[in-house]
Amino acid sequence: MTLPSAAAAADGGVRSVTRAFDLLRAFDAEHKVRSLRELVEFTGLPKSTVVRLLSTLSNPGIITSPSESTYSIGPAFLRWVKLAEAMWEVGAEARQVMTALRDECGETVNIYIRQDLHRICVAQVEGTTTVRSVVRVGEPYPMTGGAAARVLLGGCPDTVLDALSEQDARVDAKDLRTGAASTREAGFAITHGDRELGASAVAAPITAADGRLLAALSMSGPTSRFTADRVTQYVDAVTKAARQISAVGLGTVEAFL
Amino acid sequence: MTLPSAAAAADGGVRSVTRAFDLLRAFDAEHKVRSLRELVEFTGLPKSTVVRLLSTLSNPGIITSPSESTYSIGPAFLRWVKLAEAMWEVGAEARQVMTALRDECGETVNIYIRQDLHRICVAQVEGTTTVRSVVRVGEPYPMTGGAAARVLLGGCPDTVLDALSEQDARVDAKDLRTGAASTREAGFAITHGDRELGASAVAAPITAADGRLLAALSMSGPTSRFTADRVTQYVDAVTKAARQISAVGLGTVEAFL
Repeated sequence: MTLPSAAAAADGGVRSVTRAFDLLRAFDAEHKVRSLRELVEFTGLPKSTVVRLLSTLSNPGIITSPSESTYSIGPAFLRWVKLAEAMWEVGAEARQVMTALRDECGETVNIYIRQDLHRICVAQVEGTTTVRSVVRVGEPYPMTGGAAARVLLGGCPDTVLDALSEQDARVDAKDLRTGAASTREAGFAITHGDRELGASAVAAPITAADGRLLAALSMSGPTSRFTADRVTQYVDAVTKAARQISAVGLGTVEAFL
Repeated sequence: MTLPSAAAAADGGVRSVTRAFDLLRAFDAEHKVRSLRELVEFTGLPKSTVVRLLSTLSNPGIITSPSESTYSIGPAFLRWVKLAEAMWEVGAEARQVMTALRDECGETVNIYIRQDLHRICVAQVEGTTTVRSVVRVGEPYPMTGGAAARVLLGGCPDTVLDALSEQDARVDAKDLRTGAASTREAGFAITHGDRELGASAVAAPITAADGRLLAALSMSGPTSRFTADRVTQYVDAVTKAARQISAVGLGTVEAFL
Protein backbone atom coordinates (compact mmCIF):
# COMPACT_ATOMS: atom_id res chain seq x y z
CA MET A 1 0.00 0.00 0.00
CA THR A 2 3.04 2.35 -0.06
CA LEU A 3 3.58 4.70 -2.97
CA PRO A 4 7.04 4.80 -4.54
CA SER A 5 8.43 8.02 -3.07
CA ALA A 6 9.13 9.34 -6.57
CA ALA A 7 5.47 9.03 -7.54
CA ALA A 8 4.46 10.56 -4.23
CA ALA A 9 6.78 13.51 -4.72
CA ALA A 10 5.44 13.96 -8.24
CA ASP A 11 1.89 14.11 -6.96
CA GLY A 12 0.99 17.49 -5.43
CA GLY A 13 -2.33 16.13 -4.20
CA VAL A 14 -0.70 13.29 -2.30
CA ARG A 15 1.85 15.71 -0.88
CA SER A 16 -0.91 18.01 0.38
CA VAL A 17 -2.72 15.13 2.08
CA THR A 18 0.50 14.05 3.79
CA ARG A 19 1.16 17.65 4.85
CA ALA A 20 -2.37 17.99 6.24
CA PHE A 21 -1.79 15.03 8.58
CA ASP A 22 1.70 16.28 9.46
CA LEU A 23 0.01 19.52 10.51
CA LEU A 24 -2.57 17.65 12.61
CA ARG A 25 0.28 15.85 14.41
CA ALA A 26 1.22 19.21 15.94
CA PHE A 27 -1.70 18.81 18.31
CA ASP A 28 -1.56 16.58 21.39
CA ALA A 29 -2.52 16.63 25.08
CA GLU A 30 0.42 18.97 25.80
CA HIS A 31 -0.37 21.19 22.80
CA LYS A 32 -4.14 21.51 22.62
CA VAL A 33 -3.83 24.98 21.07
CA ARG A 34 -1.12 26.07 18.60
CA SER A 35 -0.32 29.49 17.16
CA LEU A 36 0.18 29.93 13.43
CA ARG A 37 3.86 30.59 14.10
CA GLU A 38 4.20 27.33 16.05
CA LEU A 39 2.50 25.40 13.24
CA VAL A 40 4.86 26.90 10.66
CA GLU A 41 7.84 25.91 12.84
CA PHE A 42 6.44 22.44 13.57
CA THR A 43 5.73 21.57 9.94
CA GLY A 44 8.62 23.46 8.36
CA LEU A 45 6.17 24.50 5.64
CA PRO A 46 5.80 27.99 4.16
CA LYS A 47 3.34 30.15 6.11
CA SER A 48 1.13 30.46 3.02
CA THR A 49 0.90 26.65 2.77
CA VAL A 50 0.02 26.28 6.46
CA VAL A 51 -2.65 28.99 6.18
CA ARG A 52 -4.12 27.26 3.13
CA LEU A 53 -4.18 23.88 4.90
CA LEU A 54 -5.79 25.42 8.00
CA SER A 55 -8.45 27.01 5.82
CA THR A 56 -9.18 23.75 4.05
CA LEU A 57 -9.41 21.84 7.34
CA SER A 58 -11.45 24.45 9.21
CA ASN A 59 -14.55 24.41 7.05
CA PRO A 60 -15.49 20.77 7.84
CA GLY A 61 -14.50 21.26 11.50
CA ILE A 62 -11.29 19.20 11.38
CA ILE A 63 -9.45 22.30 12.61
CA THR A 64 -10.97 24.99 14.79
CA SER A 65 -9.73 28.47 15.66
CA PRO A 66 -10.50 29.25 19.31
CA SER A 67 -9.07 32.76 18.90
CA GLU A 68 -7.34 34.98 16.32
CA SER A 69 -4.52 32.91 14.70
CA THR A 70 -4.63 30.12 17.29
CA TYR A 71 -5.77 26.66 16.22
CA SER A 72 -6.89 23.32 17.67
CA ILE A 73 -8.23 20.05 16.33
CA GLY A 74 -11.94 20.44 15.70
CA PRO A 75 -15.08 18.58 16.79
CA ALA A 76 -15.24 16.71 13.48
CA PHE A 77 -12.74 14.32 15.05
CA LEU A 78 -15.54 13.11 17.32
CA ARG A 79 -16.75 11.44 14.12
CA TRP A 80 -13.95 8.89 14.47
CA VAL A 81 -13.29 8.81 18.23
CA LYS A 82 -15.69 6.03 19.22
CA LEU A 83 -14.82 4.11 16.06
CA ALA A 84 -11.05 4.30 16.61
CA GLU A 85 -11.47 3.25 20.24
CA ALA A 86 -13.82 0.41 19.37
CA MET A 87 -11.40 -0.87 16.73
CA TRP A 88 -7.95 -0.24 18.14
CA GLU A 89 -8.11 -0.09 21.91
CA VAL A 90 -6.48 -3.06 23.59
CA GLY A 91 -8.76 -5.14 25.81
CA ALA A 92 -9.01 -4.73 29.59
CA GLU A 93 -7.35 -8.10 30.36
CA ALA A 94 -4.29 -7.23 28.26
CA ARG A 95 -4.14 -3.81 29.93
CA GLN A 96 -4.14 -5.46 33.36
CA VAL A 97 -1.09 -7.51 32.36
CA MET A 98 0.63 -4.33 31.10
CA THR A 99 -0.10 -2.52 34.38
CA ALA A 100 1.19 -5.44 36.44
CA LEU A 101 4.42 -5.40 34.39
CA ARG A 102 4.79 -1.64 34.87
CA ASP A 103 4.21 -2.03 38.61
CA GLU A 104 6.80 -4.82 38.79
CA CYS A 105 9.54 -2.96 36.88
CA GLY A 106 8.51 0.72 37.04
CA GLU A 107 9.27 1.38 33.35
CA THR A 108 6.90 2.45 30.57
CA VAL A 109 5.12 -0.48 28.90
CA ASN A 110 3.85 -0.27 25.30
CA ILE A 111 2.17 -2.54 22.78
CA TYR A 112 3.21 -1.89 19.17
CA ILE A 113 1.65 -3.20 15.97
CA ARG A 114 3.06 -2.90 12.48
CA GLN A 115 1.19 -0.74 9.99
CA ASP A 116 2.66 -0.88 6.51
CA LEU A 117 6.28 0.27 6.96
CA HIS A 118 5.84 1.75 10.43
CA ARG A 119 5.08 0.57 13.94
CA ILE A 120 2.40 2.26 15.99
CA CYS A 121 1.84 2.15 19.74
CA VAL A 122 -1.78 1.14 20.40
CA ALA A 123 -1.58 0.80 24.19
CA GLN A 124 0.59 2.34 26.88
CA VAL A 125 1.05 2.20 30.63
CA GLU A 126 3.45 4.96 31.66
CA GLY A 127 6.45 4.40 33.90
CA THR A 128 6.40 5.58 37.50
CA THR A 129 9.64 7.59 37.49
CA THR A 130 10.28 11.18 36.38
CA VAL A 131 12.87 10.20 33.80
CA ARG A 132 10.98 7.71 31.67
CA SER A 133 10.43 6.68 28.10
CA VAL A 134 7.74 8.83 26.49
CA VAL A 135 6.10 7.43 23.37
CA ARG A 136 2.94 8.75 21.72
CA VAL A 137 0.01 6.39 21.25
CA GLY A 138 -1.01 6.42 17.57
CA GLU A 139 2.26 7.99 16.41
CA PRO A 140 4.11 6.13 13.62
CA TYR A 141 7.64 5.03 14.62
CA PRO A 142 10.28 3.45 12.35
CA MET A 143 10.50 -0.31 11.85
CA THR A 144 14.27 -0.03 11.64
CA GLY A 145 15.07 0.85 15.26
CA GLY A 146 14.16 -0.26 18.77
CA ALA A 147 13.44 -3.60 20.43
CA ALA A 148 9.74 -3.56 19.48
CA ALA A 149 10.69 -3.03 15.82
CA ARG A 150 13.04 -6.03 15.92
CA VAL A 151 10.29 -8.22 17.35
CA LEU A 152 7.79 -7.01 14.72
CA LEU A 153 10.35 -7.61 11.94
CA GLY A 154 10.28 -11.24 13.06
CA GLY A 155 6.72 -11.48 11.75
CA CYS A 156 7.22 -9.50 8.53
CA PRO A 157 6.92 -11.14 5.09
CA ASP A 158 10.06 -10.69 2.93
CA THR A 159 8.15 -8.21 0.74
CA VAL A 160 7.94 -5.82 3.74
CA LEU A 161 11.62 -6.34 4.63
CA ASP A 162 12.53 -5.55 1.00
CA ALA A 163 10.32 -2.44 0.98
CA LEU A 164 12.00 -1.26 4.21
CA SER A 165 15.48 -1.58 2.69
CA GLU A 166 14.28 0.17 -0.49
CA GLN A 167 12.95 3.00 1.66
CA ASP A 168 16.19 3.46 3.60
CA ALA A 169 19.54 3.06 1.82
CA ARG A 170 21.33 2.38 5.15
CA VAL A 171 19.15 -0.69 5.68
CA ASP A 172 20.16 -3.94 4.02
CA ALA A 173 17.34 -6.44 3.34
CA LYS A 174 19.66 -9.38 4.10
CA ASP A 175 20.60 -7.93 7.51
CA LEU A 176 16.90 -7.42 8.26
CA ARG A 177 16.18 -11.05 7.40
CA THR A 178 18.98 -12.44 9.60
CA GLY A 179 18.04 -10.02 12.41
CA ALA A 180 14.37 -10.99 12.15
CA ALA A 181 15.25 -14.70 12.18
CA SER A 182 17.49 -14.42 15.25
CA THR A 183 14.90 -12.35 17.17
CA ARG A 184 12.26 -14.95 16.27
CA GLU A 185 14.52 -17.68 17.59
CA ALA A 186 15.45 -15.83 20.80
CA GLY A 187 11.82 -14.91 21.52
CA PHE A 188 12.75 -11.38 22.64
CA ALA A 189 14.90 -8.36 21.73
CA ILE A 190 17.08 -6.04 23.81
CA THR A 191 18.29 -2.68 22.48
CA HIS A 192 20.44 0.07 23.98
CA GLY A 193 20.50 3.45 22.19
CA ASP A 194 19.23 1.78 19.04
CA ARG A 195 16.52 4.27 18.11
CA GLU A 196 17.69 7.03 20.47
CA LEU A 197 20.90 7.51 22.47
CA GLY A 198 20.40 6.69 26.16
CA ALA A 199 17.15 4.84 25.53
CA SER A 200 16.94 1.10 26.14
CA ALA A 201 14.14 -1.38 25.62
CA VAL A 202 13.19 -5.03 26.04
CA ALA A 203 10.46 -6.45 23.81
CA ALA A 204 8.74 -9.80 23.23
CA PRO A 205 6.20 -11.10 20.71
CA ILE A 206 2.43 -11.22 21.30
CA THR A 207 1.02 -14.04 19.16
CA ALA A 208 -2.38 -15.34 18.03
CA ALA A 209 -3.67 -18.82 18.87
CA ASP A 210 -2.21 -20.03 15.54
CA GLY A 211 1.23 -18.65 16.48
CA ARG A 212 1.01 -15.71 14.05
CA LEU A 213 2.78 -12.57 15.32
CA LEU A 214 0.20 -9.92 16.24
CA ALA A 215 2.16 -7.29 18.14
CA ALA A 216 5.20 -6.54 20.29
CA LEU A 217 5.11 -5.93 24.03
CA SER A 218 7.85 -3.46 24.87
CA MET A 219 9.24 -2.04 28.10
CA SER A 220 11.52 0.96 27.67
CA GLY A 221 13.44 3.47 29.75
CA PRO A 222 16.82 5.17 30.27
CA THR A 223 19.83 2.95 29.50
CA SER A 224 21.25 3.84 32.93
CA ARG A 225 18.49 1.75 34.52
CA PHE A 226 18.71 -1.12 32.02
CA THR A 227 21.81 -2.62 33.67
CA ALA A 228 22.97 -6.16 32.82
CA ASP A 229 21.45 -7.73 35.96
CA ARG A 230 18.19 -5.77 35.67
CA VAL A 231 17.82 -6.58 31.96
CA THR A 232 17.94 -10.31 32.72
CA GLN A 233 15.02 -9.83 35.13
CA TYR A 234 13.25 -7.52 32.61
CA VAL A 235 13.51 -10.12 29.84
CA ASP A 236 11.84 -12.71 32.09
CA ALA A 237 9.11 -10.25 33.11
CA VAL A 238 8.40 -8.99 29.55
CA THR A 239 8.39 -12.44 27.90
CA LYS A 240 6.13 -13.76 30.69
CA ALA A 241 3.72 -10.82 30.30
CA ALA A 242 3.76 -11.23 26.48
CA ARG A 243 2.77 -14.89 26.87
CA GLN A 244 -0.04 -13.90 29.25
CA ILE A 245 -1.34 -11.30 26.77
CA SER A 246 -1.12 -13.84 23.94
CA ALA A 247 -3.27 -16.14 26.11
CA VAL A 248 -5.97 -13.59 27.07
CA GLY A 249 -5.87 -11.92 23.63
CA LEU A 250 -5.58 -8.27 22.58
CA GLY A 251 -9.32 -7.70 22.17
CA THR A 252 -11.16 -6.34 19.11
CA VAL A 253 -7.91 -4.98 17.64
CA GLU A 254 -6.93 -8.59 16.76
CA ALA A 255 -9.58 -8.58 14.02
CA PHE A 256 -7.56 -5.91 12.18
CA LEU A 257 -4.09 -7.47 12.54
CA MET B 1 -11.27 30.72 7.65
CA THR B 2 -13.18 29.59 4.54
CA LEU B 3 -11.51 29.63 1.16
CA PRO B 4 -13.39 31.26 -1.71
CA SER B 5 -14.73 28.21 -3.52
CA ALA B 6 -13.11 29.39 -6.76
CA ALA B 7 -9.68 29.41 -5.14
CA ALA B 8 -10.41 26.04 -3.57
CA ALA B 9 -11.43 24.51 -6.87
CA ALA B 10 -8.32 25.95 -8.49
CA ASP B 11 -6.12 24.30 -5.88
CA GLY B 12 -5.53 20.59 -6.54
CA GLY B 13 -3.79 20.19 -3.18
CA VAL B 14 -6.72 21.60 -1.26
CA ARG B 15 -9.09 19.41 -3.28
CA SER B 16 -7.07 16.30 -2.41
CA VAL B 17 -7.14 17.13 1.31
CA THR B 18 -10.91 17.61 1.17
CA ARG B 19 -11.27 14.34 -0.73
CA ALA B 20 -9.12 12.50 1.83
CA PHE B 21 -11.49 13.51 4.64
CA ASP B 22 -14.53 12.75 2.48
CA LEU B 23 -13.07 9.26 2.09
CA LEU B 24 -12.53 8.92 5.85
CA ARG B 25 -16.19 9.84 6.39
CA ALA B 26 -17.12 6.52 4.76
CA PHE B 27 -16.13 4.80 8.00
CA ASP B 28 -18.41 4.71 11.04
CA ALA B 29 -19.67 2.28 13.68
CA GLU B 30 -21.95 0.63 11.07
CA HIS B 31 -19.18 0.57 8.43
CA LYS B 32 -15.97 -0.37 10.23
CA VAL B 33 -14.65 -2.06 7.08
CA ARG B 34 -15.25 -0.89 3.51
CA SER B 35 -14.40 -2.50 0.19
CA LEU B 36 -12.65 -0.50 -2.52
CA ARG B 37 -15.86 -0.64 -4.55
CA GLU B 38 -17.88 0.79 -1.65
CA LEU B 39 -15.36 3.61 -1.21
CA VAL B 40 -15.52 4.47 -4.92
CA GLU B 41 -19.33 4.54 -4.69
CA PHE B 42 -19.34 6.51 -1.42
CA THR B 43 -16.96 9.22 -2.62
CA GLY B 44 -18.02 9.29 -6.27
CA LEU B 45 -14.32 9.59 -7.13
CA PRO B 46 -12.48 7.69 -9.88
CA LYS B 47 -11.11 4.34 -8.67
CA SER B 48 -7.55 5.49 -9.42
CA THR B 49 -8.03 8.54 -7.16
CA VAL B 50 -9.44 6.43 -4.32
CA VAL B 51 -6.55 3.96 -4.62
CA ARG B 52 -4.04 6.82 -4.54
CA LEU B 53 -5.69 8.36 -1.47
CA LEU B 54 -5.77 4.99 0.30
CA SER B 55 -2.08 4.50 -0.44
CA THR B 56 -1.20 7.94 0.88
CA LEU B 57 -3.22 7.40 4.06
CA SER B 58 -2.05 3.84 4.71
CA ASN B 59 1.63 4.51 5.22
CA PRO B 60 1.19 6.67 8.35
CA GLY B 61 -1.53 4.30 9.65
CA ILE B 62 -4.49 6.64 9.02
CA ILE B 63 -6.01 3.90 6.88
CA THR B 64 -5.42 0.19 7.38
CA SER B 65 -6.17 -2.76 5.12
CA PRO B 66 -7.37 -5.73 7.20
CA SER B 67 -7.57 -7.89 4.06
CA GLU B 68 -7.09 -7.69 0.29
CA SER B 69 -8.91 -4.56 -0.98
CA THR B 70 -10.84 -3.96 2.26
CA TYR B 71 -10.08 -0.88 4.33
CA SER B 72 -10.67 0.61 7.78
CA ILE B 73 -9.51 3.66 9.70
CA GLY B 74 -6.09 2.97 11.16
CA PRO B 75 -4.55 3.11 14.64
CA ALA B 76 -2.98 6.51 13.90
CA PHE B 77 -6.38 7.93 14.85
CA LEU B 78 -5.62 6.92 18.44
CA ARG B 79 -3.23 9.89 18.25
CA TRP B 80 -6.22 12.24 18.40
CA VAL B 81 -8.85 10.19 20.24
CA LYS B 82 -8.02 11.22 23.81
CA LEU B 83 -7.37 14.78 22.68
CA ALA B 84 -10.68 15.11 20.82
CA GLU B 85 -12.55 13.66 23.79
CA ALA B 86 -10.77 15.89 26.28
CA MET B 87 -11.54 18.96 24.16
CA TRP B 88 -14.96 18.34 22.70
CA GLU B 89 -16.90 15.95 24.89
CA VAL B 90 -19.75 17.59 26.74
CA GLY B 91 -19.57 17.38 30.54
CA ALA B 92 -21.39 14.75 32.62
CA GLU B 93 -23.84 17.24 34.18
CA ALA B 94 -24.97 18.49 30.77
CA ARG B 95 -25.31 14.87 29.58
CA GLN B 96 -27.55 14.09 32.55
CA VAL B 97 -29.87 16.91 31.53
CA MET B 98 -29.92 15.58 27.94
CA THR B 99 -30.77 12.08 29.15
CA ALA B 100 -33.56 13.37 31.39
CA LEU B 101 -35.02 15.25 28.40
CA ARG B 102 -34.81 12.15 26.21
CA ASP B 103 -36.49 10.07 28.94
CA GLU B 104 -39.25 12.69 29.29
CA CYS B 105 -40.02 12.98 25.55
CA GLY B 106 -38.53 9.82 24.00
CA GLU B 107 -36.97 11.67 21.04
CA THR B 108 -33.28 12.00 20.08
CA VAL B 109 -31.53 14.89 21.86
CA ASN B 110 -28.46 16.60 20.35
CA ILE B 111 -26.18 19.50 21.20
CA TYR B 112 -24.90 21.39 18.15
CA ILE B 113 -22.13 23.98 17.95
CA ARG B 114 -21.27 26.15 14.96
CA GLN B 115 -17.94 25.55 13.26
CA ASP B 116 -17.20 28.06 10.51
CA LEU B 117 -20.15 27.66 8.09
CA HIS B 118 -21.42 24.35 9.46
CA ARG B 119 -22.99 23.00 12.61
CA ILE B 120 -21.62 19.90 14.26
CA CYS B 121 -23.27 17.63 16.81
CA VAL B 122 -20.92 17.26 19.80
CA ALA B 123 -23.25 15.29 22.07
CA GLN B 124 -26.15 12.94 21.52
CA VAL B 125 -28.65 10.90 23.52
CA GLU B 126 -30.58 8.67 21.13
CA GLY B 127 -34.35 8.41 21.11
CA THR B 128 -36.07 5.32 22.51
CA THR B 129 -38.26 4.48 19.49
CA THR B 130 -37.41 2.50 16.35
CA VAL B 131 -38.26 5.36 14.01
CA ARG B 132 -36.08 8.15 15.32
CA SER B 133 -33.87 10.98 14.19
CA VAL B 134 -30.37 9.70 13.45
CA VAL B 135 -27.60 12.29 13.40
CA ARG B 136 -23.86 11.57 13.39
CA VAL B 137 -21.74 13.06 16.16
CA GLY B 138 -18.89 15.04 14.57
CA GLU B 139 -20.55 15.21 11.15
CA PRO B 140 -20.89 18.71 9.64
CA TYR B 141 -24.49 19.72 8.92
CA PRO B 142 -25.71 22.85 7.09
CA MET B 143 -26.37 26.10 8.95
CA THR B 144 -29.25 26.83 6.59
CA GLY B 145 -31.73 24.16 7.71
CA GLY B 146 -33.17 22.72 10.89
CA ALA B 147 -34.20 24.16 14.26
CA ALA B 148 -30.68 23.89 15.73
CA ALA B 149 -29.31 25.88 12.77
CA ARG B 150 -31.88 28.64 13.35
CA VAL B 151 -30.90 28.88 17.01
CA LEU B 152 -27.18 28.99 16.12
CA LEU B 153 -27.83 31.68 13.48
CA GLY B 154 -29.14 33.79 16.36
CA GLY B 155 -25.58 33.99 17.70
CA CYS B 156 -23.79 34.50 14.37
CA PRO B 157 -21.98 37.75 13.52
CA ASP B 158 -23.23 39.36 10.28
CA THR B 159 -19.95 38.36 8.58
CA VAL B 160 -20.97 34.68 8.98
CA LEU B 161 -24.53 35.35 7.78
CA ASP B 162 -23.09 37.11 4.70
CA ALA B 163 -20.66 34.21 4.04
CA LEU B 164 -23.56 31.75 4.28
CA SER B 165 -25.59 33.65 1.68
CA GLU B 166 -22.51 33.94 -0.57
CA GLN B 167 -22.05 30.17 -0.28
CA ASP B 168 -25.64 29.35 -1.24
CA ALA B 169 -27.44 31.45 -3.88
CA ARG B 170 -30.86 30.38 -2.52
CA VAL B 171 -30.02 31.95 0.86
CA ASP B 172 -30.60 35.69 1.30
CA ALA B 173 -28.46 37.43 3.95
CA LYS B 174 -31.33 39.74 4.88
CA ASP B 175 -33.68 36.79 5.45
CA LEU B 176 -31.03 35.14 7.62
CA ARG B 177 -30.71 38.31 9.72
CA THR B 178 -34.45 38.66 10.28
CA GLY B 179 -34.78 34.91 10.94
CA ALA B 180 -31.88 35.02 13.42
CA ALA B 181 -33.35 38.06 15.19
CA SER B 182 -36.81 36.47 15.55
CA THR B 183 -35.37 33.18 16.84
CA ARG B 184 -33.28 35.14 19.35
CA GLU B 185 -36.40 36.95 20.50
CA ALA B 186 -38.56 33.79 20.73
CA GLY B 187 -35.83 31.88 22.60
CA PHE B 188 -36.48 28.69 20.61
CA ALA B 189 -37.07 27.36 17.08
CA ILE B 190 -39.48 24.78 15.69
CA THR B 191 -39.04 23.25 12.23
CA HIS B 192 -41.04 20.69 10.25
CA GLY B 193 -39.41 19.16 7.15
CA ASP B 194 -36.99 22.08 7.03
CA ARG B 195 -33.78 20.14 6.48
CA GLU B 196 -35.45 16.85 5.55
CA LEU B 197 -39.06 15.95 4.62
CA GLY B 198 -40.83 14.27 7.54
CA ALA B 199 -38.26 15.38 10.09
CA SER B 200 -39.21 17.87 12.82
CA ALA B 201 -37.17 19.47 15.56
CA VAL B 202 -37.41 21.84 18.50
CA ALA B 203 -34.24 23.69 19.58
CA ALA B 204 -33.24 26.25 22.20
CA PRO B 205 -30.05 28.22 22.92
CA ILE B 206 -27.36 27.15 25.42
CA THR B 207 -25.62 30.31 26.64
CA ALA B 208 -22.53 31.25 28.64
CA ALA B 209 -22.67 33.17 31.94
CA ASP B 210 -22.24 36.41 29.94
CA GLY B 211 -25.25 35.51 27.77
CA ARG B 212 -23.13 34.66 24.71
CA LEU B 213 -24.63 31.84 22.58
CA LEU B 214 -22.50 28.69 22.93
CA ALA B 215 -24.60 25.93 21.38
CA ALA B 216 -28.07 24.73 20.50
CA LEU B 217 -29.94 22.00 22.34
CA SER B 218 -32.12 20.18 19.83
CA MET B 219 -34.73 17.44 20.07
CA SER B 220 -35.73 15.87 16.77
CA GLY B 221 -37.89 13.10 15.41
CA PRO B 222 -40.55 12.21 12.81
CA THR B 223 -43.02 15.02 12.03
CA SER B 224 -45.87 12.59 12.69
CA ARG B 225 -44.96 12.66 16.40
CA PHE B 226 -44.36 16.42 16.57
CA THR B 227 -48.07 17.25 16.72
CA ALA B 228 -49.26 20.74 17.72
CA ASP B 229 -50.10 19.76 21.31
CA ARG B 230 -46.92 17.73 21.75
CA VAL B 231 -44.72 20.49 20.30
CA THR B 232 -46.01 22.93 22.93
CA GLN B 233 -44.89 20.49 25.63
CA TYR B 234 -41.60 19.84 23.78
CA VAL B 235 -40.80 23.56 23.59
CA ASP B 236 -41.24 23.86 27.37
CA ALA B 237 -39.09 20.75 27.98
CA VAL B 238 -36.29 21.76 25.56
CA THR B 239 -36.06 25.41 26.68
CA LYS B 240 -36.07 24.28 30.34
CA ALA B 241 -33.29 21.73 29.66
CA ALA B 242 -31.29 24.34 27.69
CA ARG B 243 -31.48 26.73 30.66
CA GLN B 244 -30.33 23.93 32.99
CA ILE B 245 -27.36 23.12 30.70
CA SER B 246 -26.51 26.84 30.49
CA ALA B 247 -26.44 26.85 34.30
CA VAL B 248 -24.27 23.74 34.81
CA GLY B 249 -22.10 24.53 31.76
CA LEU B 250 -21.01 22.39 28.80
CA GLY B 251 -17.64 21.41 30.28
CA THR B 252 -14.19 21.80 28.71
CA VAL B 253 -15.72 22.32 25.24
CA GLU B 254 -16.76 25.84 26.36
CA ALA B 255 -13.10 26.92 26.23
CA PHE B 256 -13.15 26.39 22.44
CA LEU B 257 -16.46 28.12 21.67
